[in-house]
Amino acid sequence: MTASCDVGAFYAGLVSHGLIIPTGIKGGYGRGAAFEDILRGFNDLVSRVAAPDGAEELMFPPILPRALIEQVGYMDNFPQLAGSVHSFFGDDAQARELSARVHAGERWDDLLAITEVMLTPAACYPVYPTFSGLLPHGGRLVTVMNWVYRHEPSDEPTRLQAFRMREFIRVGKPDVVVAWRDAWLLRTLELLRGLGLPVQSDVASDPFFGRVGKMLAANQVDQRLKFEILAPVISLEQPTALCSFNWHQDHFSSKFGIRNADESVAHTACLGFGLERVTLALLKTHGFEPQTWPEDVRAQLWP
Amino acid sequence: MTASCDVGAFYAGLVSHGLIIPTGIKGGYGRGAAFEDILRGFNDLVSRVAAPDGAEELMFPPILPRALIEQVGYMDNFPQLAGSVHSFFGDDAQARELSARVHAGERWDDLLAITEVMLTPAACYPVYPTFSGLLPHGGRLVTVMNWVYRHEPSDEPTRLQAFRMREFIRVGKPDVVVAWRDAWLLRTLELLRGLGLPVQSDVASDPFFGRVGKMLAANQVDQRLKFEILAPVISLEQPTALCSFNWHQDHFSSKFGIRNADESVAHTACLGFGLERVTLALLKTHGFEPQTWPEDVRAQLWP
Repeated sequence: MTASCDVGAFYAGLVSHGLIIPTGIKGGYGRGAAFEDILRGFNDLVSRVAAPDGAEELMFPPILPRALIEQVGYMDNFPQLAGSVHSFFGDDAQARELSARVHAGERWDDLLAITEVMLTPAACYPVYPTFSGLLPHGGRLVTVMNWVYRHEPSDEPTRLQAFRMREFIRVGKPDVVVAWRDAWLLRTLELLRGLGLPVQSDVASDPFFGRVGKMLAANQVDQRLKFEILAPVISLEQPTALCSFNWHQDHFSSKFGIRNADESVAHTACLGFGLERVTLALLKTHGFEPQTWPEDVRAQLWP
Repeated sequence: MTASCDVGAFYAGLVSHGLIIPTGIKGGYGRGAAFEDILRGFNDLVSRVAAPDGAEELMFPPILPRALIEQVGYMDNFPQLAGSVHSFFGDDAQARELSARVHAGERWDDLLAITEVMLTPAACYPVYPTFSGLLPHGGRLVTVMNWVYRHEPSDEPTRLQAFRMREFIRVGKPDVVVAWRDAWLLRTLELLRGLGLPVQSDVASDPFFGRVGKMLAANQVDQRLKFEILAPVISLEQPTALCSFNWHQDHFSSKFGIRNADESVAHTACLGFGLERVTLALLKTHGFEPQTWPEDVRAQLWP
């Protein structure tokens, strides 16, 4: 199993089985009915496993305020992944100019201007502002399943520009938040191994931009702020991250004024399942035809 | 029930009941658990009603190729609604400049450039290219549930920048396609009236841009190409469109080379449910607390 030959064969198998539908953009394929069925089955399984915790469900659209992206420092740390939404604000004459350029095959983006929104790059970002102020005793726990965007076009079917993240976000006292993250790391390893996935966990870092970013990433690893659970999907040597577990300390709490019931500064942590990646890992492990998957796996996904 | 006073009270009621969560952007609020439960219940009901037709399920991400937007004529007809995705392609020095401008509160969009993607403005657009070539005998029927984007910021909770459209797309011989659309118009009126919604249908037109657009819209009405089903949500005088039923004739077929099994040019039609709008119409009609809704409505949404 090596990256170069496997990617093409895996992609071709996904297409020939109707699991994904090419659209002409890298990392922007459509999903077929069987793919969606697996993804929904896994997401529902996560819901059942997490049900005793009583997380509050929220849902946010794929867009968020430009001001929020600026506030969380995304343009400082990950500008290369950002998606900024621009639109047309002109009059009739400018619209004719735009139309003429489109038909002439010329660039027309200088006729657009920024809107007030950007694409959501992490499912948890819109949640933090809702925590502002004094938290209830014990903190809060929220779950979301949002579409996120990252500008990293790739031929690897596991690296998408737009994908769904199922996340849990915990806010409260530092020791509670860290214990919650660590418990979910074990719980998730058990969950994924129970589905037959050959997963392992590892310390990880975010894809910070540029030279300064290398230092930020090293610091993140040193402090063990981020863990990932990985499985071989397109390469044995470079397994794919399926889930991440992040302790932000007071990064978001300080920006959004989030305090515990006793007025102390709260900490936040989040964990996210990359739903397309888990789906692809299941397809890689058990084959392109879910009806032939092991009965105990099927029973968990489609009880 | 007049537009000006109702919008504020309805919005406030949605917020106070946790149905929507303000995010600071017009038409970009979050959805609470009860809102999502209604939306899912209605979408599942549509699936059950449509099950005998055996539509093929596909799912596309909120982005699509810029080339597709150009090809379908969207920038000619609806440039004011478009969402173009731009990102940062610069080096370390440019990233420092970007970061400095963000922190100085200055404009930084000139440091971005266009990507190869735009936001999906209609759930059916990514489907048409998959029909290219010769259709099977009898044509095809596809259903999708995709996020769409339209740049029309508004304080009306029914007018969103990002929302979910459940669509059915039919392609085949002209008479078959038109009969399918007309049958679904009646089927949908029955479905929505069965949920207690005071709906009516009407001939409609798309929001074409500018002076030329007014003529295009008038022509669309004359030819009865588009129908909508409407219900009073924020105004009795100006009811809200919940669904639309569109006959495109050969608009998409000619662009994507879609032909019937006998080589004749195929026609396409689509129908779309605005899932957030149906949810809001149900909340307006039956109240902010779904547990108090009429038993026969609850039984259909949550069987």
